[in-house]
Amino acid sequence: MRDVISMSRIFFWPFSVFSVFSVVKALIRPNDMMILAARNFLAALLIALRLDAQPAPIAQRYGDAADRLIHAALADSAAWNRIAELTERFGPRFSGTPNLERAIDWVLAEMKKDGMQNVRGEPVMIPSWVRGAESAELVEPRRQNLPMLGLGGSIATPPNGITAEVLVVSSWDDLKANSARAQGKMVLFNAPFTTYGATVQYRTNGAVEAAKAGAVASLIRSVGPYSMRTPHTGGTRYDTTVRRIPHAAITTEDADMLARMQARGEKILVRLTMSAQMLPDAPSRNVIGEIVGREKPDEVVVMGGHIDSWDVGRGAMDDAGGVVVAWEAVRLMHKLGLRPRRTIRVVGWTNEENGLRGGNAYRDAHRAELNRHVAAIESDGGVFKPAGFGFTGSDAGFAIARQVGSLLERIGAGAITRGGGGADIGPIMQLGVPGLGLNVDGTRYFWYHHTEADTVDKLDPHDVALCVATMAVMSYVLADMEETLGRNSP
Amino acid sequence: MRDVISMSRIFFWPFSVFSVFSVVKALIRPNDMMILAARNFLAALLIALRLDAQPAPIAQRYGDAADRLIHAALADSAAWNRIAELTERFGPRFSGTPNLERAIDWVLAEMKKDGMQNVRGEPVMIPSWVRGAESAELVEPRRQNLPMLGLGGSIATPPNGITAEVLVVSSWDDLKANSARAQGKMVLFNAPFTTYGATVQYRTNGAVEAAKAGAVASLIRSVGPYSMRTPHTGGTRYDTTVRRIPHAAITTEDADMLARMQARGEKILVRLTMSAQMLPDAPSRNVIGEIVGREKPDEVVVMGGHIDSWDVGRGAMDDAGGVVVAWEAVRLMHKLGLRPRRTIRVVGWTNEENGLRGGNAYRDAHRAELNRHVAAIESDGGVFKPAGFGFTGSDAGFAIARQVGSLLERIGAGAITRGGGGADIGPIMQLGVPGLGLNVDGTRYFWYHHTEADTVDKLDPHDVALCVATMAVMSYVLADMEETLGRNSP
Repeated sequence: MRDVISMSRIFFWPFSVFSVFSVVKALIRPNDMMILAARNFLAALLIALRLDAQPAPIAQRYGDAADRLIHAALADSAAWNRIAELTERFGPRFSGTPNLERAIDWVLAEMKKDGMQNVRGEPVMIPSWVRGAESAELVEPRRQNLPMLGLGGSIATPPNGITAEVLVVSSWDDLKANSARAQGKMVLFNAPFTTYGATVQYRTNGAVEAAKAGAVASLIRSVGPYSMRTPHTGGTRYDTTVRRIPHAAITTEDADMLARMQARGEKILVRLTMSAQMLPDAPSRNVIGEIVGREKPDEVVVMGGHIDSWDVGRGAMDDAGGVVVAWEAVRLMHKLGLRPRRTIRVVGWTNEENGLRGGNAYRDAHRAELNRHVAAIESDGGVFKPAGFGFTGSDAGFAIARQVGSLLERIGAGAITRGGGGADIGPIMQLGVPGLGLNVDGTRYFWYHHTEADTVDKLDPHDVALCVATMAVMSYVLADMEETLGRNSP
Repeated sequence: MRDVISMSRIFFWPFSVFSVFSVVKALIRPNDMMILAARNFLAALLIALRLDAQPAPIAQRYGDAADRLIHAALADSAAWNRIAELTERFGPRFSGTPNLERAIDWVLAEMKKDGMQNVRGEPVMIPSWVRGAESAELVEPRRQNLPMLGLGGSIATPPNGITAEVLVVSSWDDLKANSARAQGKMVLFNAPFTTYGATVQYRTNGAVEAAKAGAVASLIRSVGPYSMRTPHTGGTRYDTTVRRIPHAAITTEDADMLARMQARGEKILVRLTMSAQMLPDAPSRNVIGEIVGREKPDEVVVMGGHIDSWDVGRGAMDDAGGVVVAWEAVRLMHKLGLRPRRTIRVVGWTNEENGLRGGNAYRDAHRAELNRHVAAIESDGGVFKPAGFGFTGSDAGFAIARQVGSLLERIGAGAITRGGGGADIGPIMQLGVPGLGLNVDGTRYFWYHHTEADTVDKLDPHDVALCVATMAVMSYVLADMEETLGRNSP
């Protein structure tokens, strides 16, 4: 798009020179041809004036900046290397753990080394759920260890565990139809993965619904479309009106096995042992570093991901990648001397996974300046090959975001779609800040989500670099352009 | 091929009737046309006689039987269900464990129920290596559990484990170049997966080579092209001339991480704890069931896989599938009343994985009748979508096997290639028995090989049914045809 416009400008000048000559000639010795030529020139002049009265299209104004950012992002594997170092130096960064706070210290120190401005940690008190020792064992019809992960927030079992007969159900309806048989049992929700949204409800609400039916514990089939005997953790909830029972995930392989055992008429006995506990809230921080705007430093594009992770794997995809690509995007602006009109604030929110305290604390700490937050951008879907952004905001804002998106078409990341944002920016989006969420190829995201397999090798260095480029171009243009995306209707 | 030949037979008869008439007429009142026609008839008769002097092509003789076997195999998911039941009822079937012997008892009982003949377990003494409790922990630069599997046959560490600095090498050459630094260290062989053959050498010989360089323990990057933090076990060996050191596999993810830590100059300390021990040999059995030949019961096509597995996962692909598809193939012959001229003997060899005692014991127990073994067929590459067979034998035998293969082209499993067989039939192939190994789509075989992820869900019921059909057609025709594949040169 940008190239076409440049070409038309180049061709405009010979035409204009010829036309000025026509006007002068017409003043001296007019004829019809001259009058026609002069009229054409005046019309062209009007068009030119109209173009100049409004800013040039975004794609035209920011083509060069976009090229420079993209070129710099794709020049090396710096972002991938940084994800590797962050995730391998500190491991999983679970809320309430020293790993998380050490990782935050390191990010702050590295941001300073990078020359980022206003680098700081903003205090947040976060929940501290501790998994402790845990296991599930098939006792009948034969003994076998069942790889498992307790679900975040679950209570413990008694020290010797709970040994109970298992009732396998495939859905809420199936539980309802068999609720008379659930009393005193361990209910296994074996709902095959369809979409995350449709399947995660058994993780979120399984303990409540199983307890309502009289179950003593509940298990779920891990929420994911593919498994190599891989349990997935994730948050769960209780209901104040219902007795709390322990809740854990087993692998899809073992869930299917138990379902077949039940179908074959075999009695299934499982012993579940969990020592999970909720400790007092612990201090943590939202990690922040900025490039301060050259003209409107008080206006802010906030951009990032969450610095915490679950307590398994290394949280590379979820969401070290999100923090690092935002951070790298701004590092490149510093390096290239591309200082935007407004401030871009990189944030690594804390405690997204089991509390969203970081996102809420950011809203509370920055409430007074949220009307000067022109956009919020989050990457929390894995830094796989980027496709563009999902946008939540006004129609006018959407049209502008699409113009910015056109700058990303050259790397296949220009698709701006309706709807999107992110958990951490949700609280400020609700207060009117337009939100964008990075969209990527999500084919394998739920293979690794909340598992031991979420490690940096699952990310491709070139894809990660493309994500840096995509975040850089979007944030730079939103922070620099004279227009804004407007406000969301709260 | 079969259809074309049938058509030519049909058209042959009107021509022949006409020609007999010509001969008779020529005898009564000869003329040139009649003489020509009579000559044509005699020539055709010669061709017909020559055809009848040799058997019709295999593809022609066995087209109907192949169709019936294929149709029966593809009619349901019986084979997949049987793999599920075998693997889930008994779990992994490791040599020396009650699981294996219970599974053998069950297979024998089921074979009898199926109406198989001469069902029996033939005694074999097998090694009994016991893994025991084991773990690997990264101690420096930070603490983290390293998912691991000790390698079959490894010795234990002292009870408190071995804590040592890690030296990461990428190859034998890299170890050689850094052997001065290996003294007292734990060597990690981090050789990326290329082919199984090229990579498995570090599992097989790593402990010996590391010990030669003075290492106190050795680790390998798991042998596989893809990982979800999945350690792979497998056999290893020692050398009587070198000190034995413990040998274990960690995940590809963690091997890469340790390599990057070393590249970043970090000191890596790992604590390896293994309590493996070798118990006295234990009694086991090769599982056998037959369909006895109708004409030459003493001549045998032997066919199967191995009934044992490693001690992790459920050994569905490796190799419950191999045993079950051979068994199902013969069950279908019984069911269809397709009794071949010779005996087909289904064998589930024991202890393929860590000793090959079953294959060797079969050779020893059947040495006297091996010259009447017309073929040996093994499935031990996973029962994924079948492609055909690899054949080891004479040129004449290969040509015949290809003719049988043509019967499998209709299900895409007709490719007969040079070379192939199987570990269990290796000992009898060495004594002259022509060998065939089922070839399948091996794309994901080494994803699951010797891991917790080797479970029945990795197999597709239709693919498994195609494997049954492929084994059934090949074994039936080899057992029934008048020809034989000849002998291998021992």
